[in-house]
Amino acid sequence: MNKYLELMEKENIECSLVLSTPNIYYLTGYEGGGFLIICRDNVAKLYVPVLEYTRAKASVKNTNVMVKAYSRYPLKEIIVENYVSGDFPSIVKKELENYKRIGLDKNITLGTYERIEQYLRDKELIDMSKHLSKLRSIKSTEEIDLILKAVEITEKALRKAIDKIHEGISELELAGEIEYYMKSYGAPITAFPSIVAFGENSAYPHAVPSERKLGNSDIVLIDIGARVNGYCSDMTRTFSYKYSNDTFEKRLEAVINAQLEAIDYIAPGVKASEVDSKARECLRKEGLAKYFIHGLGHGVGVEVHELPTLSPNSNDVLEKGMVVTIEPGIYFDGVYGIRVEDLVLVTSRGCRVLTKFSKMLEL
Amino acid sequence: MNKYLELMEKENIECSLVLSTPNIYYLTGYEGGGFLIICRDNVAKLYVPVLEYTRAKASVKNTNVMVKAYSRYPLKEIIVENYVSGDFPSIVKKELENYKRIGLDKNITLGTYERIEQYLRDKELIDMSKHLSKLRSIKSTEEIDLILKAVEITEKALRKAIDKIHEGISELELAGEIEYYMKSYGAPITAFPSIVAFGENSAYPHAVPSERKLGNSDIVLIDIGARVNGYCSDMTRTFSYKYSNDTFEKRLEAVINAQLEAIDYIAPGVKASEVDSKARECLRKEGLAKYFIHGLGHGVGVEVHELPTLSPNSNDVLEKGMVVTIEPGIYFDGVYGIRVEDLVLVTSRGCRVLTKFSKMLEL
Repeated sequence: MNKYLELMEKENIECSLVLSTPNIYYLTGYEGGGFLIICRDNVAKLYVPVLEYTRAKASVKNTNVMVKAYSRYPLKEIIVENYVSGDFPSIVKKELENYKRIGLDKNITLGTYERIEQYLRDKELIDMSKHLSKLRSIKSTEEIDLILKAVEITEKALRKAIDKIHEGISELELAGEIEYYMKSYGAPITAFPSIVAFGENSAYPHAVPSERKLGNSDIVLIDIGARVNGYCSDMTRTFSYKYSNDTFEKRLEAVINAQLEAIDYIAPGVKASEVDSKARECLRKEGLAKYFIHGLGHGVGVEVHELPTLSPNSNDVLEKGMVVTIEPGIYFDGVYGIRVEDLVLVTSRGCRVLTKFSKMLEL
Repeated sequence: MNKYLELMEKENIECSLVLSTPNIYYLTGYEGGGFLIICRDNVAKLYVPVLEYTRAKASVKNTNVMVKAYSRYPLKEIIVENYVSGDFPSIVKKELENYKRIGLDKNITLGTYERIEQYLRDKELIDMSKHLSKLRSIKSTEEIDLILKAVEITEKALRKAIDKIHEGISELELAGEIEYYMKSYGAPITAFPSIVAFGENSAYPHAVPSERKLGNSDIVLIDIGARVNGYCSDMTRTFSYKYSNDTFEKRLEAVINAQLEAIDYIAPGVKASEVDSKARECLRKEGLAKYFIHGLGHGVGVEVHELPTLSPNSNDVLEKGMVVTIEPGIYFDGVYGIRVEDLVLVTSRGCRVLTKFSKMLEL
């Protein structure tokens, strides 16, 4: 929040309206419906629906954020402290009427925006979405610790679930095992829908777990992440069940080598696009670049996809404190896919790989 | 899709741009990134990122939808059939340039909209979001079957998980058990983050499972739903573990009675707000209305929150084929909450309750 207030001062913004759940979470610690109004000359006000009031109060630790309950409909008998009658547009109108230069979080649907457009017409609107994304891309020590906690749970869960792998287990059952352990180790939700894909299904980069059962010599691709205290992890491993073959082994090695070369290249000041091309170049030498059909990685934090973007046309530059995935992958339609993904923290001199799980699994 | 095309004809729309994931799923069967362009004089075109191309092709059953791959960056070596070079704005520009009256799905972030705004300036824009929401609120027989499948999996999973309840189990472990069974019965994801809340945590309508352990005579609130083939279920049960007390029993009975009265009132042509007030009136008689701090329910389908909205200020009217939750709840800060929720299909004469799980659980 303090960094955001500094930004507002720098941009000479009198009042900010923040609407997207991840940005509100980042600034206040509350996750749920509502909207946040931050005025430089006042405490921030977090408006939440009446049903979220007590939970929001318990979630917000910052004493400079005042939680208020609001309701779209008049509540005859319900008594909540800090209650404001009115809907989202009427509250926005009232809160912003004395300010001219307004910071707006543009992560809002067009439909929602149109409900308040008339109250913003005579204002100077400054897009704060990009500023917020940039701010969120550089992690504090506390944020890195939370990401490490999510990494730890993800790895422990994968270790346990791998022991449950047997011939005939379905993708869904294995995904169920992994997520069961994530929860029992303390992660209330996953960072994204877990990908567990066997054989030909692993050729879909975003495969959805199915009833497909595991057979001997099937390729297994597992792409998972936990979300703990609002912060995500993200990791992918690919291996062959029981029997392997030379082609797969060679390709897996090529992907791992491409990943390691890219990781080696990471340092503050390096262009994200160049890290991508390092990995692409490596795979090109092996004749595999044409199967690498996505970008190399992305930032991870409150959301599993954040800035920076590591892809051929990215303009982002790596900075100390960024946490990014490095995940080259190659996909052979109808046969299998291979992706290896680690989470990497950009440090002052290079980087530190946060995920430690073995890349050469033998089962 | 056919119903949407009829709507386009009725509104005299030449070409539609649909961007939100649920709406694209509803119209095509594909779930993931991308955008859909539907022209009346042509087949629909579903543009997806290159990495999603094969999965999208496998997901789209409608032969009137052509899947095309696009990429933000030039792909030197990657060869995909139906490949279009260009980013989202440039493709939109090209696809829409010959049309004047454009239907727009406004479920798009303001930031995304601004990327294409310049190409829409000289068009007549018709908001199709509301039409799509209305269309989606009335379920076909096939859609009802998919919802029933999700209901069946949710209830089977809850039955299995209830056997695992024991003193000392944590909210997270129990949520993990439920979701494990949901997956093993065929649901790749949940309809929403499962709520498993013990004792004082159940007083938060949107509680997040924690390490809180179950003790004798704790209240247990479980609000869960599976999502199968893109369709959701949603159900809540509340009970007392081992020992109960008269106050709780009386309050639970009051909530169930309010729910049953509301369900009894459901029929095509009935105002959604009146169904809400039926339940509210019931709780008022028991002196409990002031603890009922949210609306009575919502539509369920591709998303877990859809139209209609059952709340005091809703203007929606129930129609045959709508599937809605009926979920009165009362919350006592720091003590416990009680919510009972069923999924109900509006039929030609009244309604049919889709969830069958017992409301009076004894453990």
